[in-house]
Amino acid sequence: MKKKILLVGASGTLGKAVAAHLRQRHEVITASRSDAAHPVDLGDEQSVSALLQAVGPLDAIVSTTGNVHFGPLTQMTAAQFNQGLQDKLLGQVRLALLGQHHLNEGGSITLTTGILTEQPIAQGANATAVNAAVEGFVRAAALELPRGLRINVVSPSVLVEALDAYGDFFPGFEPVSAARAALAYQRSIDGIANGQVFKVW
Amino acid sequence: MKKKILLVGASGTLGKAVAAHLRQRHEVITASRSDAAHPVDLGDEQSVSALLQAVGPLDAIVSTTGNVHFGPLTQMTAAQFNQGLQDKLLGQVRLALLGQHHLNEGGSITLTTGILTEQPIAQGANATAVNAAVEGFVRAAALELPRGLRINVVSPSVLVEALDAYGDFFPGFEPVSAARAALAYQRSIDGIANGQVFKVW
Repeated sequence: MKKKILLVGASGTLGKAVAAHLRQRHEVITASRSDAAHPVDLGDEQSVSALLQAVGPLDAIVSTTGNVHFGPLTQMTAAQFNQGLQDKLLGQVRLALLGQHHLNEGGSITLTTGILTEQPIAQGANATAVNAAVEGFVRAAALELPRGLRINVVSPSVLVEALDAYGDFFPGFEPVSAARAALAYQRSIDGIANGQVFKVW
Repeated sequence: MKKKILLVGASGTLGKAVAAHLRQRHEVITASRSDAAHPVDLGDEQSVSALLQAVGPLDAIVSTTGNVHFGPLTQMTAAQFNQGLQDKLLGQVRLALLGQHHLNEGGSITLTTGILTEQPIAQGANATAVNAAVEGFVRAAALELPRGLRINVVSPSVLVEALDAYGDFFPGFEPVSAARAALAYQRSIDGIANGQVFKVW
């Protein structure tokens, strides 16, 4: 069955690969901060509500977006730590909380974390905490969603395409291609999993 | 060796039991929102800094405090979700980030989460996310702390003493006494564990 999917974060490396993969079978509406047709700021309640109203009822909502703070623990401030809480954590949670009311019966939500949840790196305490929180939210929310709705999360390793920018932070980590990570989003959308972390590593 | 310990959240059910247990061997300075000698608001950077300056160098910092939002997922808002992020999550992280600079070599930080990290309950999506984030922070921070500093977290089940207030939220959960949970804080402080979750259930 062809599904109507909203993909937030579609302008990023991962988002582009997810959009390309999902479009083979589904209708994909892309959104991002800079999108001309569907601009959205996940930090802004009204912006997310307006997007959801504009696109109408959906079969799936996908987020491939979110920033965290990277920096040495000994210099980290609570204000810096809060940046990741507001962006990658609360932004994705806001999309899920508002989005649940715009999903057709049996619809799904798929969020994004990363390998740092389980395998910390130097300067990554905020990333590990934020990812763990998103996965915790998914674990609990899956048990409360009504109408056959499902929620999962995809946790990729560092992307091959991001090695130039981030490779030094991930010494010895095996990178994965964005195209490989994109498969996990399809599993979440077209499978029956609920409350699961799809680890792409 | 007798240690100098700062305990934040000492006015709560768990905090009182932890204080009583630790005082058998150590000097315990208690602090809380309502404490006459050492009032502190973990949501306020200046308040935490002032407390740490006032008490001087420490061998251990313990937090037994933090509130989250409880409510049905289908009615939850991002603003409500953020309450738990700011209080139980960022409050404890703030204490750790500022506190690390006031610990003697080999000192420890011990935070508090709860069984909901791994075993979600209805209306508890914020609690599971917040607890998971605190545990993620501890997992990562443990690997970056300098000078032999350590950080752990204690995760109790619902307390016997809290059953009247919260028992209906935890159907069939085996409660633990605050006195039993208090032992785990001693393990964190007087043992060698680092980056560990002490599960009291």
